[in-house]
Amino acid sequence: MNEIPNWLQNRAFLTPDRIAVKYNGESITFLDLHNRVVKVANHLSTLGIKENDMVSILMKNSVKMVELIHALMYIGAVTVFLNSKLTKNELRWQIQDSDSTFLITESRFNEELGSLHSNTILVENLEEKESTTKAAIKELFQLDRPNSIMYTSGTTGKPKGVVQTYGNHWSSAIGSVLNLGLQQNDCWLAAVPFFHISGLSILIRSVVYGIPVVIFDGFNAQEVNHSIINEKVTIISVVSAMLTQLVADLRDDSYPDTFRCMLLGGGPAPKPLLELCKEKGIPVYQTYGMTETSSQIVTLSPEYSLSKLGSAGKPLFPCQIRIEKNGNSLEAYEHGEIVVKGPNVTMGYYKREDATAKALVDGWLYTGDIGYLDEEGFLFVLDRRNDLIISGGENIYPAEVESVLLSHPSIIDAGVIGRESEKWGQVPVAFIKVNKTASLSSNDVILYCKERLAKYKVPTEVFFIEELPRNASNKILRRKLVDILKQKVQL
Amino acid sequence: MNEIPNWLQNRAFLTPDRIAVKYNGESITFLDLHNRVVKVANHLSTLGIKENDMVSILMKNSVKMVELIHALMYIGAVTVFLNSKLTKNELRWQIQDSDSTFLITESRFNEELGSLHSNTILVENLEEKESTTKAAIKELFQLDRPNSIMYTSGTTGKPKGVVQTYGNHWSSAIGSVLNLGLQQNDCWLAAVPFFHISGLSILIRSVVYGIPVVIFDGFNAQEVNHSIINEKVTIISVVSAMLTQLVADLRDDSYPDTFRCMLLGGGPAPKPLLELCKEKGIPVYQTYGMTETSSQIVTLSPEYSLSKLGSAGKPLFPCQIRIEKNGNSLEAYEHGEIVVKGPNVTMGYYKREDATAKALVDGWLYTGDIGYLDEEGFLFVLDRRNDLIISGGENIYPAEVESVLLSHPSIIDAGVIGRESEKWGQVPVAFIKVNKTASLSSNDVILYCKERLAKYKVPTEVFFIEELPRNASNKILRRKLVDILKQKVQL
Repeated sequence: MNEIPNWLQNRAFLTPDRIAVKYNGESITFLDLHNRVVKVANHLSTLGIKENDMVSILMKNSVKMVELIHALMYIGAVTVFLNSKLTKNELRWQIQDSDSTFLITESRFNEELGSLHSNTILVENLEEKESTTKAAIKELFQLDRPNSIMYTSGTTGKPKGVVQTYGNHWSSAIGSVLNLGLQQNDCWLAAVPFFHISGLSILIRSVVYGIPVVIFDGFNAQEVNHSIINEKVTIISVVSAMLTQLVADLRDDSYPDTFRCMLLGGGPAPKPLLELCKEKGIPVYQTYGMTETSSQIVTLSPEYSLSKLGSAGKPLFPCQIRIEKNGNSLEAYEHGEIVVKGPNVTMGYYKREDATAKALVDGWLYTGDIGYLDEEGFLFVLDRRNDLIISGGENIYPAEVESVLLSHPSIIDAGVIGRESEKWGQVPVAFIKVNKTASLSSNDVILYCKERLAKYKVPTEVFFIEELPRNASNKILRRKLVDILKQKVQL
Repeated sequence: MNEIPNWLQNRAFLTPDRIAVKYNGESITFLDLHNRVVKVANHLSTLGIKENDMVSILMKNSVKMVELIHALMYIGAVTVFLNSKLTKNELRWQIQDSDSTFLITESRFNEELGSLHSNTILVENLEEKESTTKAAIKELFQLDRPNSIMYTSGTTGKPKGVVQTYGNHWSSAIGSVLNLGLQQNDCWLAAVPFFHISGLSILIRSVVYGIPVVIFDGFNAQEVNHSIINEKVTIISVVSAMLTQLVADLRDDSYPDTFRCMLLGGGPAPKPLLELCKEKGIPVYQTYGMTETSSQIVTLSPEYSLSKLGSAGKPLFPCQIRIEKNGNSLEAYEHGEIVVKGPNVTMGYYKREDATAKALVDGWLYTGDIGYLDEEGFLFVLDRRNDLIISGGENIYPAEVESVLLSHPSIIDAGVIGRESEKWGQVPVAFIKVNKTASLSSNDVILYCKERLAKYKVPTEVFFIEELPRNASNKILRRKLVDILKQKVQL
């Protein structure tokens, strides 16, 4: 199996009249969506976008974004998904690193950020001129071809483009359906951004399964709850911070019986929240996944949500998992690195042969996350990779923030860790050692970061210390920073 | 994607406590089934069955047969599925042609047919001795490796072994789930034999989906209806003859709401039957498929069962279809050969390079069936391949019966066609031209066939005629035979 009919086109052929997208009260069938996408593809083609082009896209969730995502697949271009929360410099770096020949964005971003690419297409102007070229539409998708690129950081602090193939996305949708099932009335709510894999994977499931996706361009607990209850949503993807707000907004109300899956990703969930959900009869499926696994790779069914509290579950059917230390697979309950394999696992990082070779060995992905399996094979994640901080579902890599701090002339050393936050799960806080002659305030540091980092990455607090705790090989001992933070908070 | 964890083993790991098999009031979980299969694999291994061995299996549906089918996968052997209705000579031919190193069968068949293979394993004796060898269990299945072989005949009259890979079966299960969906309460009733793809595919779906299969070792309308109603069966695979009996037995009763899919394959269904089902609220999914497509490739949803009456539906998601004549793809409503493609399509016929090259071109399977697509892409099958006769879900190739008839010293020429039968859909009838000096009765001919052909293939009537209608290239004009039959029946 190496090719498959064009997903949306095929879906529009098989079930033309089913609803594909719901947005702001508007409903669009798969056939309508296909027809719109063909038009958009013709426009993009007229503007010069060709097969194999890398095309960056900077947008908020909308029907237009859905059309563009499919149109780029129709043409055979590779979509580079940009996080709209990033700063101008961060965006520019990713656009360049990905060799994007075009940037597609909305005028609001263009006005706010200025020109990010010499070939910028504004969505609002897309259909201004008539399209003079008919796009050569891909009738078949080759499973081993790149479909999308999403950037993640890592130990180095330098973001890397994760390449997701058509086969990765297809296998992710298949692995998910074998776990969650598929009902005629299914309807998936997407309030997570399409530029994250959690959002994009919903769009792909929608066309592969033939089910509607309800689109939100941001998260508002009240509106989302209203939609779940009134638009007969059956599944929603959330992160802890969203779930907390949904439950709070729900108060004494409850979801209808048709609502069957609260898919909870993006980091560990607090136990009281899970217990509250159990009490309220909310079917929470905890899940573990990352950009490199094209969404879920391990998921916990609600039947185990309390008996296996804190577990991320078991692998999806086509996937495998093991815990490794010093090259050996570990036994139950032994702590080590989580290593995963499956057809949804990335082929590697764009133009980063070294990083790819380090992360992927014989198809096994070394996640950098620490965890263990219990005697039944349930996964427990202990520490997210590379001291990852997860804030409202966004990943923050301490090394990336530290490298910005260290670029300040007065800062000699820096360490960043996550601090618990009721609203966001975690927020980043910084510890810095400064040049003795410098006069630098917390605010100065925060301002400096704000100019260079997406808002969610900017430390909420800055602590000045004499010396950063480091081990013999000069690695920051973040656990010690956690202890220092505790002391400081208690004082 | 080229490998996947061992299906049953993986399922027993993921959902050990779910029911895998129901048979004669007994329920077995996936973990139980796995443990039994490991034991059987050890026994088979002790008896000398190795990876890559071709192993013929001649059994009726039973839990033991399910165990053996999985055990052979655990070892990595290729299972050759023998139709228990065949004669000794037919079976012996298939066992030899497939290079089977072993035959696994039940003592009842062994007693009835005598020894068919020097290495015959009787199921009843399987666990007599302790197993001294531990089978090396395949942890992973390679998708491009052969899993099973099932024989079909064709124009030549000589059966050919259709090779079905692990990937074929996997893709078939995936294509089906994207069309039929998957519910937590799903339960599939198998009253069709596991030696046919209609039965085997249920077993594979059971482990891939994690749902129970209710096993029947034969078809009895009353018992099957009782099971659907009382054991909460949600899906059943049937052929027209079975459906007719089920509906008759049901009388004024109806199926519970949980029953959601009557998957109807094995040839065209009579319109009055479909209308009756519609009236009774029975959700019939008509389907078109064959051994070469590892089960369904085109399926009609009930929402279209009357508006598209007579149609087999649209392709499963990963599949493609076109109508061809003289190497050209035809337009809507034009009649031609049905050509299909998909990851569930066989890689070819065992040791038949010529037949494989003829049937498969660039992955497209030339089915030999004639049909057309309407303007929406719904398939209508007009004539089954090679004048195929379908009798109670069993395929009968006229050429095969004719070659037996022609082997009789007094028969000079012979033609076989199907005659409509209320009970079986069709039954074969023969037209023969005999040597003038011969004194041969209908009964003589039927007896002669009975010794050489499975019962269902034996002509129910024999007509003696002066000359068989043949065209310029000496091909039998079966349509003319149909006309002659009509005249004879009217007389």
